[in-house]
Formats: sequence, structure tokens, C-alpha cells
Amino acid sequence: MTPEEVRARATGPTAGLAIGFAQANLIAVPADWAYDVLLFTQRNPKPCPVLDVTDAGGHHTVLAPGADLRTAIPRYRIWRDGELTGEPADATPFWRDDLVSFLIGCSFTFEGALAAAGVPLRHVDQGRNVPMFVTNRECRPAGRVHGPLVVSMRWIPEDLVLTATRVSALMPAVHGSPVHAGDPAELGIADPSTPDFGDPVDPVDGDVPVFWACGVTPQAALMASKPPFAITHAPGHMLVTDVPDIEYRIS
Amino acid sequence: MTPEEVRARATGPTAGLAIGFAQANLIAVPADWAYDVLLFTQRNPKPCPVLDVTDAGGHHTVLAPGADLRTAIPRYRIWRDGELTGEPADATPFWRDDLVSFLIGCSFTFEGALAAAGVPLRHVDQGRNVPMFVTNRECRPAGRVHGPLVVSMRWIPEDLVLTATRVSALMPAVHGSPVHAGDPAELGIADPSTPDFGDPVDPVDGDVPVFWACGVTPQAALMASKPPFAITHAPGHMLVTDVPDIEYRIS
Repeated sequence: MTPEEVRARATGPTAGLAIGFAQANLIAVPADWAYDVLLFTQRNPKPCPVLDVTDAGGHHTVLAPGADLRTAIPRYRIWRDGELTGEPADATPFWRDDLVSFLIGCSFTFEGALAAAGVPLRHVDQGRNVPMFVTNRECRPAGRVHGPLVVSMRWIPEDLVLTATRVSALMPAVHGSPVHAGDPAELGIADPSTPDFGDPVDPVDGDVPVFWACGVTPQAALMASKPPFAITHAPGHMLVTDVPDIEYRIS
Repeated sequence: MTPEEVRARATGPTAGLAIGFAQANLIAVPADWAYDVLLFTQRNPKPCPVLDVTDAGGHHTVLAPGADLRTAIPRYRIWRDGELTGEPADATPFWRDDLVSFLIGCSFTFEGALAAAGVPLRHVDQGRNVPMFVTNRECRPAGRVHGPLVVSMRWIPEDLVLTATRVSALMPAVHGSPVHAGDPAELGIADPSTPDFGDPVDPVDGDVPVFWACGVTPQAALMASKPPFAITHAPGHMLVTDVPDIEYRIS
């Protein structure tokens, strides 16, 4: 499928779809909160690498000029005062004229590069959403916005951990190198088979858990910081952009 | 000299001082303008890679915890309505409680890496400030902030242009790879011996002019956008931070 086809038709998680094109997290907040969110992303670039910011009320992005941000994502989340109040497939009825949308890099973007380097993607092979975990690490706060680091986890064969690190390090705009490999307890994760977001994924013998900073981090910050209103993508259900992955790769 | 000694004693341009430590551009604007400036930097990451943003009224940065931003830079510029009104060595009398300070990556930071790779630094050898030019390329605007791309120029031996490109590409937080090498007219630069900021530097036979996006770009945006008040560093007179260059190198 092309990015345009994914945006028109996909109803589930977007990992493995339109391989070769960058995917993005969405967080849209009232203009009154935009500075705090933008500063939070600047102060936490590893989980929150910003790829584009719209003007207030806008619902288009340079990352996918033909797309309408209110409908291009397979599933949205509607937040009021930090509480999740709905998960619609169409955000149009909830959109507001004062919303500023942030599009944040997604680790799905480097999965094509991982696969090309011979690193297996267990969640794609198993047809599941990538597992994501809230960690015991606090992000650097900005104004009213604060919250914990969220990570995505991939099971990687031990002899390919360095390859996965090297390949993702060259893509700092989409989370870059892992924040941790090995013992999940180091990040305060008790059980890697019960993720906070996404699906459990089964390891293969010899696999090591590898953790990358995750674009769901701003959602955890919404839950902690409780702005009056926000719209985000549902975890794993990303905006597929028209930008080739390679644009975010240092070569 | 250590970074602390440079901050206490330097009175001129900081290129070649405290080699091994990152240097930063300063732009401080009233809080009312901070969102537009932060969005401008996000939309123009190559000239404006943000390393830190203070809270309003703050004059300390995580990049150099012991430094007072009002005095740590050898020379400042005071701007009113887009006009340069002074170049003091001490910004304390001009500081305001509503100023938000942006510290932006500086190409001086990758000069250590260039030198280590065998690339000569003509401006350092000649004891001059790096030459900087306003180009014919417009930055992507953000709210009230708009302006042209400013570049720094280095004469590089032709057979080392690829080396300089490769080395700087690995440091995207401090402008990354060049935006152009060769004919200055391509960027609307009529004469490489008459820079808009900094000093002329003499080439050696076989040198090619190589241009990097420059942290003076926000100053050009101030001149174009005319906020009521701003404080910046004077071109070439940077904040020397306590952060090792290597922190901004992808390895």
C-alpha cells in the first residue's frame, strides 16, 4: 500500500504498512498549551522528536500535504482533563479551531532500516502492535507539562543488538539509539509480557529486550498534566507520511 | 583555557577557545514572543538547533550550570524593534524578568572534529572571526517570526570537502552537514570576501568555499521581524558551555 492508501483504508496499527515511509505520532492541544508542549518536546528530544507543528486550527502538514489530520489516522484518542474519553476512527466531530497539532517522529520509521540490516521485527512477524511501557524515568518538565518517559520494546537476537543500535543511532529524528538494552527492571518495568500500551510480543530463544524512547511519551504527559482538552493518535495507530524514511537517516 | 576561564576572561570571538567544548548562540526575547521563536527554530532546525531554553526571567542554563547568561558571553547585542542599539560586554543592565533565552548550537562545536579529521581551519589560523553571509533562501516562517537563512563559510581544500561533510553530518545538533559547497552565487552571495558578519578570511590555492547553516539566522529574523526587544550574542562571540563536543556527535 502507498501512504495515501494506508491513510484512506487502514483501521488498525500501522507497523509494517507502507514500508519505506516515515510514520508520526499526533498530539493536538489548545493554543494556550502549545508553548508548554513545544518546550517539553525540545527539552525531551529523544522521546519527542518534532517533525512538524501546524498553526492553530490547521489540519494539514508538510509531511503529507494531501492528508487531512482529522481523518488520516486509523484511530484517535480524545482527552479531557487528562482522562481518555473516546477512541474514534474520525476526529472531525471533536476538532477545534484553537488546536495546534504536533507531529512527532515514530520508531516505526527505523524499522525498515532495521529489517534491511537483517534485524527481525518480532511484532510485525506476529501481527501485533509493538509493546510500550511507562518507565520510572521522569522527563524534564516544561511549564505545566510533565510526565514519565515511555519506551517501545523490541526483542532482538543478542548478536544483533549492536547492529540495531548502530542503525537506529543514525536516525535521531525518529528516536535514535535505544535508551536501554537488557534487564527491564532497570527502567522500572516489572514484566515485559504486560505492556502498558500495545500488545505482548513473544521472544525467540536468545532474544534480548531493547528499549527505545517512544512518541507515546507526550500522551503520558497529557495524563499527568491534564490539559482541558487534547486529541492524539491511538498508540500504534500512526500518521503514515509521504516522507521517505531515508530523509531522516544520516548517511 | 577551560570553559569557565573563557566565560570569565574572553573579550573577543570564541572560535578556537576551550577546544573540545560546545559553543552556543544566544537569543533572548520577551515571553510574549517565545512561542513564535521556538516554533521558528523547530521549523528551521538546520540553522536553529536548540540546545536549551530557559524559563522566563531565568539566566542560567543546564549547558553551563555555573554561568550567568547576562555576563558569560564576551559581547552582546541589544535590539529594539529590530534595530541594533548597542553591543555591551555585560547584559545585566538590559536584562528583563520576562526574557526567555534560547541557546542554539554553533558550528564552532564541530571545528574540533574537523581539525581532528585533518581539515584546516583558515579563520582560526588567521586569527579572524568566521565569515557569515545572509543568503537568498528564506526560512520557513512561524507566526510573527520570519527571515533569511544565514550561513557561515569555511575555505576547505577541495580534496577534504567530503571529509568535512561526513564529519559535520554526524553532528546534527550543531548545524550538521553543509547546505552548499562551491559557487557562492548559488546562495545569492556576490563576493565571499565581504561577509555580512564576521571577518573576511583568505583562501589557500585549491580551497573551495563551503557553507553551513548558521546560528546567526535568528538574529537576521529579529531584524526582519522586529520584536520590541531582544538580547543576543554578538556574532562569533559565543557562550562556551561545559558540554563536551562529543555529546553532540553521533558515534
